[in-house]
Amino acid sequence: MNAKTDFAGFEVGYDIPALPGMAEADIQTPCLILDLDALERNIRKMGDYAKAHGMRHRSHGKMHKSVDVQKLQQELGGAAGVCCQKVSEAEVFARGGIKDILVSNQVRDPAKIDRLARLPKLGTRIIVCVDDVANVADLSAAAQRHGTQLEVFIEIDCGAGRCGVTTAAAVVQIAKAVDAAPGLKFTGIQAYQGAMQHMESFIDRKAKLDAAIAQVKEAVAALEEAGLSPELVSGGGTGSYYFESNSGVYNELQCGSYAFMDADYGRIKDEGGHRIDKGEWENALFILTSVMSHAKPDKAICDAGLKAQSVDSGLPFIYGRDDVEYVKCSDEHGVIADPKGVLKVNEKLRLVPGHCDPTCNVHDWYVGVRNGKVETVWPVSARGKGY
Amino acid sequence: MNAKTDFAGFEVGYDIPALPGMAEADIQTPCLILDLDALERNIRKMGDYAKAHGMRHRSHGKMHKSVDVQKLQQELGGAAGVCCQKVSEAEVFARGGIKDILVSNQVRDPAKIDRLARLPKLGTRIIVCVDDVANVADLSAAAQRHGTQLEVFIEIDCGAGRCGVTTAAAVVQIAKAVDAAPGLKFTGIQAYQGAMQHMESFIDRKAKLDAAIAQVKEAVAALEEAGLSPELVSGGGTGSYYFESNSGVYNELQCGSYAFMDADYGRIKDEGGHRIDKGEWENALFILTSVMSHAKPDKAICDAGLKAQSVDSGLPFIYGRDDVEYVKCSDEHGVIADPKGVLKVNEKLRLVPGHCDPTCNVHDWYVGVRNGKVETVWPVSARGKGY
Repeated sequence: MNAKTDFAGFEVGYDIPALPGMAEADIQTPCLILDLDALERNIRKMGDYAKAHGMRHRSHGKMHKSVDVQKLQQELGGAAGVCCQKVSEAEVFARGGIKDILVSNQVRDPAKIDRLARLPKLGTRIIVCVDDVANVADLSAAAQRHGTQLEVFIEIDCGAGRCGVTTAAAVVQIAKAVDAAPGLKFTGIQAYQGAMQHMESFIDRKAKLDAAIAQVKEAVAALEEAGLSPELVSGGGTGSYYFESNSGVYNELQCGSYAFMDADYGRIKDEGGHRIDKGEWENALFILTSVMSHAKPDKAICDAGLKAQSVDSGLPFIYGRDDVEYVKCSDEHGVIADPKGVLKVNEKLRLVPGHCDPTCNVHDWYVGVRNGKVETVWPVSARGKGY
Repeated sequence: MNAKTDFAGFEVGYDIPALPGMAEADIQTPCLILDLDALERNIRKMGDYAKAHGMRHRSHGKMHKSVDVQKLQQELGGAAGVCCQKVSEAEVFARGGIKDILVSNQVRDPAKIDRLARLPKLGTRIIVCVDDVANVADLSAAAQRHGTQLEVFIEIDCGAGRCGVTTAAAVVQIAKAVDAAPGLKFTGIQAYQGAMQHMESFIDRKAKLDAAIAQVKEAVAALEEAGLSPELVSGGGTGSYYFESNSGVYNELQCGSYAFMDADYGRIKDEGGHRIDKGEWENALFILTSVMSHAKPDKAICDAGLKAQSVDSGLPFIYGRDDVEYVKCSDEHGVIADPKGVLKVNEKLRLVPGHCDPTCNVHDWYVGVRNGKVETVWPVSARGKGY
């Protein structure tokens, strides 16, 4: 045993897929790789867009679950903070030095509320969503117990059909309760239309967002009438941010997937009818996989299956190739149709995952590559933080 | 800061869903829970079956990815060792003290072969599958380099349509090459029929296994004729183990899912036409989830979505309830149809996941419960070990 090995003689780093300086060809697969040039271009582009449209951008950390990616979004893209979905994610971002955190979700469990109410002690602004007046007293009690302040967004269900209230009257009722509660501050509105983000047609998406905007405007007018003008009206995703930005009522975006892209988002069309992964955003995230068996001439088996990705939104596609196709997925294997038998054992392929968020959540590392070399290896810091 | 808190004032254990001694009601959700009584009954039952039929049982660790569960299978169920699919999983099991490990998969990458060939130094028997004679020289060179021995199973594709050779001649050709290669030992045959495990009808499964058994018998006869009688003939899963056990040619089982069960396996029928989760095996694995919004009267939103499970084999069902149904899944939310509005915010439910293997792979912990109390918290030690 020496300083470079552990008790069993294993080198430090043996259990991660790559180390900085390594050639891309030596990365251990399957693993997530980030094309750092593409990632940085995506981040700068969204930052420029938000700035030009006078919008704050609160990048969605539920997608990447990475303090490092979030800091890049803040440094290069001017992001104002992060949003995430779980208290355990907020803990990771707060401990990682992110100073403006929105939990874009309800927090109802007493232990979770208590954990949330401690986070402002780390010098972090904490905002949480509420859709039930019964939640207000619990949040208030926890904030008082810890001597902190929790800010609150009232969540409007503007089409996702999940959490959130649907009427302006309900928004005002909860906002008043928050405003009157010690330790709480009414800060704004959460109005993310999640159900339309993946509709392929621009016109169809616009129709859904027009309805959402009308609903949000009505709520804001009712709040203003009650003397509770919202500081922030927040929402918007990769399939909709231009609608919110031009709405005249939203002032904060919550885009996440634009930074990495995936196969499902790639299929949606822009106003001109083009796939958004053919111009608007670049694929920056890939599952690097290797061929590990080719016992049948027309079928290659690769090492990325269900434990390297989520297939809830369909199978991955093979980036930059139209001669081979990923056609089937089992726990640890992918079946690649290779009708001409062009693939070789140990050949590496880049897969664009069907759905980036739950795919990132099964990996421990992002391997950042540039010019064929590993430049950085970032932990997926909030991976598995679901509670 | 004191001994019980970290630099930020967080209690030790704050980032895990439960601690031993805690009441089940206080577990932080979503998380995996194991009903320890049911788990132990399943494990003992399979152990008794294997013993009564003169079979070795090599329990499949790709399912649970847990050194603790594996040790329970060895202690209570008499399991002879583990099988797993990846070198990184084998590293975890070897370091965790498991002494007989089969990588039931091909290993082709040079760095992975090198890692694999070191593992016998930990005092562990290592067996690996081969389906290409071109792999033999690489494995042999690595074993010689490390002064170790790797044992080899020749993999037969007996219906899964993935890796593996299909003819007895190919099996004999590779076995001879292995037998002649320094550092390698020909030990047996890998013949797992994965494609039929989830066919609902017992008769349909039997037909597929009859064909597989015929193929394996032919290969074994050819090997014996070549003077290479296999020590182990290994295969069999939760949907088929009785066929292999009564085949007269297999002598090792590789069942995994029987220990935990899931919704997809639960649907398959035994010889009498009954679901196998209604008698043959008990549901021991659950995703514990909480209701976190009920803003609509007929719809409860729970906190377990795509990041708490894999839905590749369908949605989970809610254990022990027929008045409510899990009907939709997004990243962090599940939508539960609650037509009578019976659920309350913070109420906890047990979900039986659609597919246990990739579901376990997104979680860091198993919370073992008995009599309403947390008895143990086990890490999912090989979680994310895919490379």
